Amino acid sequence: MTAEAVLARAPADAALIAELRSLLGERLSTAAAVREHHGKDESYHPVDPPDAVAFVQSTEEVAAVVAACARHDTPVIPFGTGTSLEGGVAALRGGVCIDMSGMNAILRVSPEDLDVTVQAGVTRKRLNEHLRDTGLFFPIDPGADASIGGMTSTRASGTNAVRYGTMRENVLGLTVVLADGRIIKTGGRARKSAAGYDLTRLFVGAEGTLGVITEITLRLYGIPEAISSAVCPFPTIKDAVDTVITVIQSGIPVARIELLDEVQMSAVVAYSKLDYAVMPTLFFEFHGTPAGVKEQAEMASAIAAEYGGVSFQWAEKPEDRSRLWQARHDAYYAALALRPGSRGWATDVCVPISRLAECIVETKADLAQSSLMAPLVGHVGDGNFHLVYLIDPAKPDEMAEATRLNERMVMRALAMGGTCTGEHGVGYGKMHFLPTEHGEGVSVMRTIKQSLDPRNIMNPGKVIAV
Amino acid sequence: MTAEAVLARAPADAALIAELRSLLGERLSTAAAVREHHGKDESYHPVDPPDAVAFVQSTEEVAAVVAACARHDTPVIPFGTGTSLEGGVAALRGGVCIDMSGMNAILRVSPEDLDVTVQAGVTRKRLNEHLRDTGLFFPIDPGADASIGGMTSTRASGTNAVRYGTMRENVLGLTVVLADGRIIKTGGRARKSAAGYDLTRLFVGAEGTLGVITEITLRLYGIPEAISSAVCPFPTIKDAVDTVITVIQSGIPVARIELLDEVQMSAVVAYSKLDYAVMPTLFFEFHGTPAGVKEQAEMASAIAAEYGGVSFQWAEKPEDRSRLWQARHDAYYAALALRPGSRGWATDVCVPISRLAECIVETKADLAQSSLMAPLVGHVGDGNFHLVYLIDPAKPDEMAEATRLNERMVMRALAMGGTCTGEHGVGYGKMHFLPTEHGEGVSVMRTIKQSLDPRNIMNPGKVIAV
Repeated sequence: MTAEAVLARAPADAALIAELRSLLGERLSTAAAVREHHGKDESYHPVDPPDAVAFVQSTEEVAAVVAACARHDTPVIPFGTGTSLEGGVAALRGGVCIDMSGMNAILRVSPEDLDVTVQAGVTRKRLNEHLRDTGLFFPIDPGADASIGGMTSTRASGTNAVRYGTMRENVLGLTVVLADGRIIKTGGRARKSAAGYDLTRLFVGAEGTLGVITEITLRLYGIPEAISSAVCPFPTIKDAVDTVITVIQSGIPVARIELLDEVQMSAVVAYSKLDYAVMPTLFFEFHGTPAGVKEQAEMASAIAAEYGGVSFQWAEKPEDRSRLWQARHDAYYAALALRPGSRGWATDVCVPISRLAECIVETKADLAQSSLMAPLVGHVGDGNFHLVYLIDPAKPDEMAEATRLNERMVMRALAMGGTCTGEHGVGYGKMHFLPTEHGEGVSVMRTIKQSLDPRNIMNPGKVIAV
Repeated sequence: MTAEAVLARAPADAALIAELRSLLGERLSTAAAVREHHGKDESYHPVDPPDAVAFVQSTEEVAAVVAACARHDTPVIPFGTGTSLEGGVAALRGGVCIDMSGMNAILRVSPEDLDVTVQAGVTRKRLNEHLRDTGLFFPIDPGADASIGGMTSTRASGTNAVRYGTMRENVLGLTVVLADGRIIKTGGRARKSAAGYDLTRLFVGAEGTLGVITEITLRLYGIPEAISSAVCPFPTIKDAVDTVITVIQSGIPVARIELLDEVQMSAVVAYSKLDYAVMPTLFFEFHGTPAGVKEQAEMASAIAAEYGGVSFQWAEKPEDRSRLWQARHDAYYAALALRPGSRGWATDVCVPISRLAECIVETKADLAQSSLMAPLVGHVGDGNFHLVYLIDPAKPDEMAEATRLNERMVMRALAMGGTCTGEHGVGYGKMHFLPTEHGEGVSVMRTIKQSLDPRNIMNPGKVIAV
């Protein structure tokens, strides 16, 4: 380690701050409140404020900030909306946070090519508002109104992924600032390419540890001619999951298929004042032509009936559908309301769908033996589900119990051929699972990290231990 | 360069050959005919035989061969079926070819998870024959009956990619032997994961320059309940392409939409003895439920009619569909038969679909001014099309003219935001286009190559110049 690198653990040096201030003027902040805000996300992880926050407005400014930090061996942490769930924005070693929210331009929409290029600070809801008049939409919808840059960096997905894929499948190209301040463009606008290494996919999901993503080209989709939603309760959670498995295996191109367990349903019913049954429940959505949607819905409801899901409630009017999905999207806040004052620790395993029922049933058996309450929601069409442990992080015994339960569940999922994170990312909360999940592959990741960021200044302490 | 590296340009040393022979016995060949066969692919590129060919039977044997080659600083070239089109298997610097055809086991089929794990030497046709009784299929279909390992390494696609994606979207995980002989597993069986860098996508399309792929886990799909195909001629090629653009923009989930120009149609009609009109023609296929297929087909034929495509010929019986698609799949051999004794130089640009008509029309205007004949076929739903220049590689003027035409077309495609290769890969035939296409990104690719293969023994001279 160089003398400079050691210094970087101390507050960023005054010369760097002065250099950044001359570059950004008032858009460089060292105010305590600003730094605190940028050192925390929506998770249970503690606040780790950066030494300064740079409010950038262009790729060139990002490049200049990164180049300056590189000269001073100072960490760089990109920040979108602060809605990460594994401590991704924590400034574990101090350094400069690059706040991307000022880079919020939608640079180009091409309805004829079904693609769009945005700056990294654009949020998913703003993008879809902007697209409204084009008849197109961008389907990836994590719970929060996250920035597209953050969603790209964590390989996010959400409720539509079972039909439309995740950020991995929907990013066509990127502009990235590398650890030495160079700017590259990856990918392109062709729908497919075999021209060299897939740098786009390397930066998607790298959580800012290989570079700062400043612009993203995304696939878009036509808003379906017809959309139909439904809610259906089931006698047991296994019946609900078996319905999902059969629907997926039947090749029904369901757009959304979401599970809420009875604990989560009780939370949602109370929070959103709904009259749904407090039972394990599937939320469905079908996209297509009017005839296609009708056909899909009939096939799915026939399958559900075989597993005891006999009372489908349909919602075809936009306002009914919005109300239905708002209940699903409010799940996290509804869960927190079950225990006022608590924080949520959101888990995120994903398993092959054939193992999903087994994984959920065993996990809920663990929970039944525990003192912690943890509602369950799942993007079950992908084999992905979340518990939210409702905890008081100040109580060591609760943290210990949540840690124990999470370790057991992750190890169970890995043993079933699954992953420790379907969509939230690794941050620093899940780094210790990667050797079990990827074995020697982690050393290849480390080799790549060291080759592209030899001084370990890009969001250090996240994803890969160096 | 080390003294050993210089030696590697000369025939592999006797000590290495002896070591490999003790490992593989008669499965190590230095016979001239075997070496010649392994030094050429289906392209116009000249033969470049390796010094020896290793017929391996397991990942562990591949690891042992690579480790031995690494100790002797000798190149390693993986070989599937030899159907690459850009010189991917040429032993430009000598070395040891690893023939994967003996690794042809289908290791696991999971109908409930819609996935399969195969050894790299399994070909796509054999995989689909094996799957027949499961009701599942693997959709990626390059022209040749290529190996899954080769298809993964070149990021292959084919006629179904418009609906099902390319190898990029359909590989879930890999087993890879690295340049030092270490074995890693990438990805997993979960449908999505945010757990670390996407090593799977890094090796997909790396053409053996970062490691040797020995096992692949693939997504599978249910064989559609209903399939319908159609052929439709158009007055002009622009009418045909405009039909494609409108179909794609309308969101019709067409499974295949292929273009053959009038030159290629004349070849196909003669070669396959068909009664199709010698006009620019689209080949369609629709997958879904009976009602869904009918609806898609009606929507597509209505669009075609707007562009003068009024005589749809339907094929719903399996034997009629097979005959129709056989004609499409025979296109390359039909093209060669237009000029007996010629070799084919297959081009492969891909552009944003909004630019496709313009790119094809300008490219055909160039051809009209040239002495070379070059039928056109295209996976036009993706914006990808191929010319096949019918050339005699022994005639320098023909090679020069094909080179000139190809350069103009690639530069045109790149200027339109496209790529020099949609699905064939870079090999050594397209390396010189990468700096124009990817700019400084090429240096990032080089950094990655050097970090994972510091001695440059993995398929050297391909993809990235070191």
